[in-house]
Amino acid sequence: MKKLVETDRWNIVENEFRPRRQRDMESIFALGNGHMGQRANFEETYSGNSLQGNYLAGVYYPDKTRVGWWKNGYPEYFAKVINAPAWIGVRIRIGGEELDLARGKVEEFTRILHMHEGYLERKYRLTLPDGKKISARVIRFLSITEPEAGAIKYTVTPENFDGKMDIGLDIDGDVRNEDANYREKFWEPVHPEINIPEAFLVMKTKKLGFYICTGIHGEVLIGGKPCPASPHPVLKEKYVSLHYRCEVKRNQPVTVVKYGCQPTSLNHTPEEILEAAGKVLKRCVSKGFDRMLSEQAEAWQRKWETSDIVIEGDDEAQQGIRFNIFQLNQTYTGDDERLNIGPKGFTGEKYGGSTYWDTEAFCFPFYLSTSDQKVARNLLLYRYKHLQKAIENAVKLGFCGGAALYPMVTMNGEECHNEWEITFEEIHRNGAIAYAIYHYIRYTGDNQYLADFGLEVLIAISRFWAQRVNFSEPHQKYVILGVTGPNEYENNVNNNWYTNTIAVWCLSYTLSAIDFVRKEHAGRYRQVVEKTGFREKEETARWKEIIENMYFPYDEEKGVFIQQDGYLDKEQMTAANLDPAIRPLNQHWSWDRILRSCFIKQADVLQGLFFLEDQYDTEIIRRNFDFYEPRTVHESSLSPCVHSVLAARIGYEQKAYELYLRTARLDLDDYNKEVAEGLHITSMAGTWMAIVLGFGGMRTREGRIFFHPMIPDKWEKYSFYVRFRESLLQVTVSRKDVIIANKSQVGVKISVYSQEEWLSADETKVFPVK
Amino acid sequence: MKKLVETDRWNIVENEFRPRRQRDMESIFALGNGHMGQRANFEETYSGNSLQGNYLAGVYYPDKTRVGWWKNGYPEYFAKVINAPAWIGVRIRIGGEELDLARGKVEEFTRILHMHEGYLERKYRLTLPDGKKISARVIRFLSITEPEAGAIKYTVTPENFDGKMDIGLDIDGDVRNEDANYREKFWEPVHPEINIPEAFLVMKTKKLGFYICTGIHGEVLIGGKPCPASPHPVLKEKYVSLHYRCEVKRNQPVTVVKYGCQPTSLNHTPEEILEAAGKVLKRCVSKGFDRMLSEQAEAWQRKWETSDIVIEGDDEAQQGIRFNIFQLNQTYTGDDERLNIGPKGFTGEKYGGSTYWDTEAFCFPFYLSTSDQKVARNLLLYRYKHLQKAIENAVKLGFCGGAALYPMVTMNGEECHNEWEITFEEIHRNGAIAYAIYHYIRYTGDNQYLADFGLEVLIAISRFWAQRVNFSEPHQKYVILGVTGPNEYENNVNNNWYTNTIAVWCLSYTLSAIDFVRKEHAGRYRQVVEKTGFREKEETARWKEIIENMYFPYDEEKGVFIQQDGYLDKEQMTAANLDPAIRPLNQHWSWDRILRSCFIKQADVLQGLFFLEDQYDTEIIRRNFDFYEPRTVHESSLSPCVHSVLAARIGYEQKAYELYLRTARLDLDDYNKEVAEGLHITSMAGTWMAIVLGFGGMRTREGRIFFHPMIPDKWEKYSFYVRFRESLLQVTVSRKDVIIANKSQVGVKISVYSQEEWLSADETKVFPVK
Repeated sequence: MKKLVETDRWNIVENEFRPRRQRDMESIFALGNGHMGQRANFEETYSGNSLQGNYLAGVYYPDKTRVGWWKNGYPEYFAKVINAPAWIGVRIRIGGEELDLARGKVEEFTRILHMHEGYLERKYRLTLPDGKKISARVIRFLSITEPEAGAIKYTVTPENFDGKMDIGLDIDGDVRNEDANYREKFWEPVHPEINIPEAFLVMKTKKLGFYICTGIHGEVLIGGKPCPASPHPVLKEKYVSLHYRCEVKRNQPVTVVKYGCQPTSLNHTPEEILEAAGKVLKRCVSKGFDRMLSEQAEAWQRKWETSDIVIEGDDEAQQGIRFNIFQLNQTYTGDDERLNIGPKGFTGEKYGGSTYWDTEAFCFPFYLSTSDQKVARNLLLYRYKHLQKAIENAVKLGFCGGAALYPMVTMNGEECHNEWEITFEEIHRNGAIAYAIYHYIRYTGDNQYLADFGLEVLIAISRFWAQRVNFSEPHQKYVILGVTGPNEYENNVNNNWYTNTIAVWCLSYTLSAIDFVRKEHAGRYRQVVEKTGFREKEETARWKEIIENMYFPYDEEKGVFIQQDGYLDKEQMTAANLDPAIRPLNQHWSWDRILRSCFIKQADVLQGLFFLEDQYDTEIIRRNFDFYEPRTVHESSLSPCVHSVLAARIGYEQKAYELYLRTARLDLDDYNKEVAEGLHITSMAGTWMAIVLGFGGMRTREGRIFFHPMIPDKWEKYSFYVRFRESLLQVTVSRKDVIIANKSQVGVKISVYSQEEWLSADETKVFPVK
Repeated sequence: MKKLVETDRWNIVENEFRPRRQRDMESIFALGNGHMGQRANFEETYSGNSLQGNYLAGVYYPDKTRVGWWKNGYPEYFAKVINAPAWIGVRIRIGGEELDLARGKVEEFTRILHMHEGYLERKYRLTLPDGKKISARVIRFLSITEPEAGAIKYTVTPENFDGKMDIGLDIDGDVRNEDANYREKFWEPVHPEINIPEAFLVMKTKKLGFYICTGIHGEVLIGGKPCPASPHPVLKEKYVSLHYRCEVKRNQPVTVVKYGCQPTSLNHTPEEILEAAGKVLKRCVSKGFDRMLSEQAEAWQRKWETSDIVIEGDDEAQQGIRFNIFQLNQTYTGDDERLNIGPKGFTGEKYGGSTYWDTEAFCFPFYLSTSDQKVARNLLLYRYKHLQKAIENAVKLGFCGGAALYPMVTMNGEECHNEWEITFEEIHRNGAIAYAIYHYIRYTGDNQYLADFGLEVLIAISRFWAQRVNFSEPHQKYVILGVTGPNEYENNVNNNWYTNTIAVWCLSYTLSAIDFVRKEHAGRYRQVVEKTGFREKEETARWKEIIENMYFPYDEEKGVFIQQDGYLDKEQMTAANLDPAIRPLNQHWSWDRILRSCFIKQADVLQGLFFLEDQYDTEIIRRNFDFYEPRTVHESSLSPCVHSVLAARIGYEQKAYELYLRTARLDLDDYNKEVAEGLHITSMAGTWMAIVLGFGGMRTREGRIFFHPMIPDKWEKYSFYVRFRESLLQVTVSRKDVIIANKSQVGVKISVYSQEEWLSADETKVFPVK
């Protein structure tokens, strides 16, 4: 099969216009700046198949739940990110003929995502149905430095004619979500305004009343000089446009510069939002397009300086990992603790742009290691701010006394998902949220966070576990019944090993957190006790009782943890037995057959060993890996990375690489034939983990950073950056050496293959590869 | 709380007009004749809250499935009975004022369901908003002898005025189902026609194109004489009406006779359907209303002669059981093997009028004992005709080789239900379908059925079980994983005792059926082998292997069967521990909490002991009853009857009566606050079982009928009829005696309290109560 994109170390390049691939490419070439994002829709009219998408972080719609059979406890709505008014429109008519790539003949076409500089470029040559030929070049970006704004430069050159050209720079507020449960439109018009050469459209969302003001500023240059005629304003309830009419000449380029902005009521009052949009546009115009673009490149340069991974000897791998890092940085910048990371980021409607456990379990390590500490801290604060909602969520399910169950899917802390086996039963998510606190503090040493915020969350989560267990007479142990573990190909099982394990871990960590805060922050401790009504003696006694008496399914003979009660009663097979024609199973087998089979969707027991590897020796990890990996079909994009890291950990280098490959270019090569729906943003962080934690063997413990690198056979060299405490380390692994360079002004103690070293500021040390 | 209806031994009586109760009463007073049925909607305009419902057996709509999260294997549609064009309308305007009980002042109001004669009567006095007073009497029935027709006699008497009265006799085809998944209308107009005094409206359903022709014939008499003016025709696409204008006088009754009919394309070609309607009307008119009504009473009399239960000393119980018998006979008459028994019959939209396992598990014994043998046989043939669809249904779920999984919910044999834990997992339904064959043959001695039809079904069902089991290494036994048992408060469990038990029973029964047919009907056997591709040696060997090595969860210490693996790990409580304020649990607890609890929705292990009681001694039944009954919350109306029969079986007389009471007047007293949605038709048969099988202790084995009667303390006497083989027995149980009267011309061997007797034609014997 032909590759979707050209292989290139720094860019994503498409050299052919394939209308059937347009939805795919709109995902792959999507833009974002952490506050807003857009699919790579064309600026000019496009009558072909397309998914229009322009999303604003934190602006969502509570879409009434659609359900076949209602179960008590289901949420009333699913919060989903809204397709917002489109400001990119540059509508061009030439002698009355609409410029539309679906209707003319595309002679040349190139699309380039410049990942190093953070912009999208498109060049094409088109013959219109009436024989007129034009060439065009379009540059677009969403600004990192001006996060409510973006800019477009659209240059069209008539190749074989003189004549009239009509250019409409518009804002289209009559947009909808394809995934609306009831075909409803989510936006209401408030106020359109035109102030040539600017136009504004204030709209608000139904139900929750988010206000946004979309503003544009237009400039049209003909042969480098401003278009002499003033634009004609078009003003409707949900649509505004600046309509320019120009006389154009053969080979004389017409250049449109369009600045767009979309401030929202997250950051402005509804009354001030129009003015806010005006100010943003003013700043953009005063800088001008070229300076904005150069600032964009500088901002991206700074990101790459702490997050780039270089791979030599494998350009496809190089492109894949840079694409992943680029998309992660487009999706979340960590400067607003109200925002989070949707599984598809800003690249599509699927999963509603909501927050899943993906954030804590898969994305957190990437941001923790490549960004300022406050970025990961803001991810934690997001959950801290949702604590009250998590407690309410637990109350809805019958828990009490301040127990919290964090939602499976959420926008504002309330549960949105409505599938009982997941919504009510996939409770292990609570564990990942506690684990992220632990991981953050272990990595950063920011113990203060535990006192200020972490402890409250941990107590609430532990209270949940303490109510969720029950004592089994036959086992004479505590059990956890009726759960779905990370492996969603099992539902409503008893004693999922991962869930029981993470529950006990949460209780233990909470006990140690209590000890720490009580001793080190006694005043704050009293506040937390007061605020949460914590009955320390009684509650901790119960927790200890559970910790000491939890049941963990284990098979003595095989020496492996059992995924859940009864797992070994299944017919035991391995994925290698499966006919490739029936893969993926979830597209070929009925649900009951999947549930009955031994096949595992994603890491489950192994997910626990990954999180808590310090508790288990290598032999145990290897035995469980040997048992579970052949049974795992990895039908979640979040799965192979975890197995890859563990494979590297136990010395299965070839297996680690194979598993890494399964998601390294998931979207670029569209393995799953679903890139049209959007990119797998959260799984991209898994690929980063497979390299840094897997191949690089990076770990952090007791204030120190460890490396135990290996290098895949196919690669000549690779390097990555990690920020650790105050330092920035560049780790380069070649076939011979491991080179650790301290790129900061702060010394740091490192351990490479268990050899401890002090790395002073700017110092580099070299170790032979083992 | 005030009773919904007056206590009366033969009638259902309501003496007050309660608009808030109108939907409830529309269900309770519903009419049916096995081929069509109607809620007790008013004939005149009613602008208050009402659920319009008029249903034709076998005419359904495949409504596109509505689902939150799609699972592989879900059906594309849910087949539901359609609210059909309404022919009952008698619209009355008096001096321009619409007669409408929601708008005038109702001075008197009585509604009577005459169960003995099978008609509905309503009398009221109304003061219209303008002060005019009228009195009215309405009689309506759906004919048993003319099953495509019904008739109405509506008499209105002006009490304090002379003047103009407008009467519209209409057919309203612009109807909809409240439960349409997408608010769609299901009917398309075909052809309206008026031929005074008759009017017709041919319509067809979307998608499947069922044709129906609704026809009416009108007569208006003023003071006993025909209205002099000819009616004015009103003809629209989906509406026709005969509009009479009369001059009326104070105290002079105006009588409307309206015959209605609705032949369908189940029994007529679309081309002939209009003519068919005309013929039906002609027959009705030639008989006239009064003769039709007397024929109706005679037809009902014949039904009561073989199905009545008389209870003395408890009029509420008397009314309850007669209401149940009446509704069962209104719902299904057994003369068309394409029809079946929806859980709500013709009384509401809920459950879509489709067929559930309710038929075989709960309704079958009633029809088997009170109707001609062909009625029960037609219920079996219904499933026989769906065998190919059941095989296709199994194929969709991944089974092969002629294995059949009968659907959970169906209209035409295809699965309609879309809730994975039920649709895919509640596979025990296959067992009930096999069991009904066994039960029928045991009761009737009609072994020929086994050869002609039964064996094919049994082989296909056994093939399903043989594929559905797998061999468990740890148990060294066959297991059945991932099922939902009859107790739907557990989902996706392993080794549900009932399911494993009925599966093994099916295999054993199939083996004996094969032996029988091979020996007694060798030619037919060869046909079946050929038709089904049956590999006798290989397949039966596998079945025997499974029979001998099935795993049945059992607790040695308690001496009880365990509902499923892990059931005893739950926190053990009894329903007596539950705060009444949280009952029913399904309205108060979240679904996960219900699943985790030990509480049982409906008989599960006990359902198995009920079906297969001959395999278990009384002590085993008692131990299991003692264990499970306190844990059962009976939140299915199908549950208490089974426990009641078992309680009677083990001598728990008081408990048997208590359990009987829980559904005896379920709808008449609206225990569950849901009668507005329709009546619990299938559970009504359970009440019959509680009396006949429970109190009466009736059993059939080896061609003989056994009785082991008891009498509840509160009752003075009760009697019931059963047809057995060629005989009709009346069993009367008083506080002293059991009197068995053979009401037929055929002698029969009976056993009372294990005492065997021969009862000649017309003979009566008396036994002392034990």
